[in-house]
Amino acid sequence: MNIKAVIAVHGGAGSAGYFINEEHRQRYLNGLINAVNAGLEVAKQGNALDMVTEAVTTMEYDGSYDAGKGSVLNLYGEIEQDAGIMWGKDLSVGAVASVKHVINTIRLARLVMEKTDHVLITGNGAEELAKQFGLWVPYVELINENKINRYKSLVRNLRSRYEKNADLAKGFGLTGTVGAVALDRDGNLAAATSTGGTILKWPGRVGDSPLPGAGYWAENGICAVSATGIGEFIIRAMASLRVVTLVKNGIRLGDAVKQVVDYVTKMFGSGNIGLIAVDSSGNVASSFNTEVMGRAWSREGMNKVVVAHHPNDPFP
Amino acid sequence: MNIKAVIAVHGGAGSAGYFINEEHRQRYLNGLINAVNAGLEVAKQGNALDMVTEAVTTMEYDGSYDAGKGSVLNLYGEIEQDAGIMWGKDLSVGAVASVKHVINTIRLARLVMEKTDHVLITGNGAEELAKQFGLWVPYVELINENKINRYKSLVRNLRSRYEKNADLAKGFGLTGTVGAVALDRDGNLAAATSTGGTILKWPGRVGDSPLPGAGYWAENGICAVSATGIGEFIIRAMASLRVVTLVKNGIRLGDAVKQVVDYVTKMFGSGNIGLIAVDSSGNVASSFNTEVMGRAWSREGMNKVVVAHHPNDPFP
Repeated sequence: MNIKAVIAVHGGAGSAGYFINEEHRQRYLNGLINAVNAGLEVAKQGNALDMVTEAVTTMEYDGSYDAGKGSVLNLYGEIEQDAGIMWGKDLSVGAVASVKHVINTIRLARLVMEKTDHVLITGNGAEELAKQFGLWVPYVELINENKINRYKSLVRNLRSRYEKNADLAKGFGLTGTVGAVALDRDGNLAAATSTGGTILKWPGRVGDSPLPGAGYWAENGICAVSATGIGEFIIRAMASLRVVTLVKNGIRLGDAVKQVVDYVTKMFGSGNIGLIAVDSSGNVASSFNTEVMGRAWSREGMNKVVVAHHPNDPFP
Repeated sequence: MNIKAVIAVHGGAGSAGYFINEEHRQRYLNGLINAVNAGLEVAKQGNALDMVTEAVTTMEYDGSYDAGKGSVLNLYGEIEQDAGIMWGKDLSVGAVASVKHVINTIRLARLVMEKTDHVLITGNGAEELAKQFGLWVPYVELINENKINRYKSLVRNLRSRYEKNADLAKGFGLTGTVGAVALDRDGNLAAATSTGGTILKWPGRVGDSPLPGAGYWAENGICAVSATGIGEFIIRAMASLRVVTLVKNGIRLGDAVKQVVDYVTKMFGSGNIGLIAVDSSGNVASSFNTEVMGRAWSREGMNKVVVAHHPNDPFP
């Protein structure tokens, strides 16, 4: 085959107020470019699974996102990350949820897929695997003064214990889940999503990111999708699989992601979802109903990375 | 409206070898009849959500199933239950995973749906909610000598740590996840699934049962579905949502469940899935590719409960 590899990534959908200043925003956007370049670099020897793993790994170590090193704190002031990855060739899935002592969470999800015959492993069981695979890190690697101060200032506004965590997170300018979708030279598709979840979430809360069908899906011959936003609505819409089903029924990729975002808006209101996708022909698409969504993409031989943030920024 | 309420339940799909003797098998089948009767009883005042909650609650307290009191032990010799519930009227979902100190796990899942704005809560975070809602029980309520002896005899055969847990579970005659689907007098649909998961599973392993789209789905105007089997394959097939999508496209309910079981068999081999479903017209259907699957159903005014176990037993 003579396919040019394609990769698209996102750094989360949310509100512009998430960014402290322009420097913060630029660091966030530059990280997306780095992720795309990392994904394309590995496309020379690797497959789509390697491409999305590398791209997401880059963002997990960056610290500018709500994933890996940058993961936000939950209601108890703790890190709890979720991640999932899917291989479109055989519909293999690997995912972890509520993981504390890991930076490279997407790699742990991939090891669940490749080394166990389970799909989703949570909490201590996932950390036990992280130890066996050399991915376990001391907790202090994921905590810093910024996070502690932010937690302390936000938790004062918390009027309830468990009733309104997602609403609060939305108010705080939720942004920063990361994801990647890729088509490789052999025509295989893969998708990956990683997150620290919503800030001040109830401990053990799992969003869409580790759940196939919700936060991601990849199916050869159709498309690969990664989602971001308020996970509870994305799950109830089964947003990623919904895109795949539309494309399978002949809807163009760009129309499919838009239709799914419109469906979510109609069912659950706006400000809660963003999607990126690549299909088996290498078309890229994105759609969101939040103020902003950081996105970047490139194709082998294109020699540039297209990056976008606001709704009117040029992007497929 | 003048709709007669309908409920169908299952007690898990698996192999006939699961049953120690005929008395064990009869207790298992009688529990299904009790669950249907409990669901129909509450249909007089309650809605479909109440019907599936009551039916599954009955089976969780019964002890004959791999759910609630009867939950099997994981690789570390511990209880870890998963459950999920969905309300077809507004696509609300509540679910819990890796829960130890609860018998009535489906009720905890329902409280996640009704009292929090999260969808899925795992581990300690879920148990903290169980305490607040009075559902927490001492661990000894879920452990007995039979389970301990079975664990000790099986763990000797365990050659690997994490590689083949699902295969082993299949070999041990996996059966006993419980589920219910219901149509109420107002035409609303609901689905619920609860399980102790696969025996000797890796700690923190989550199967299909708490994951919407995989282990259950309910959508008014279409149908409600509950799945059982080897969760990893059910997740990768998104089996419950797949049934709903087929029915939405005009496929008859009975054909839809059969097509999805055939898809799973083709993709992943046999012996791994069973489905029950009810549609918005009150039709009931089941399909499975395992040796046996305990099922029961009834409709208001029918004055009997139909129960089935083997593939040739009469059942819709």
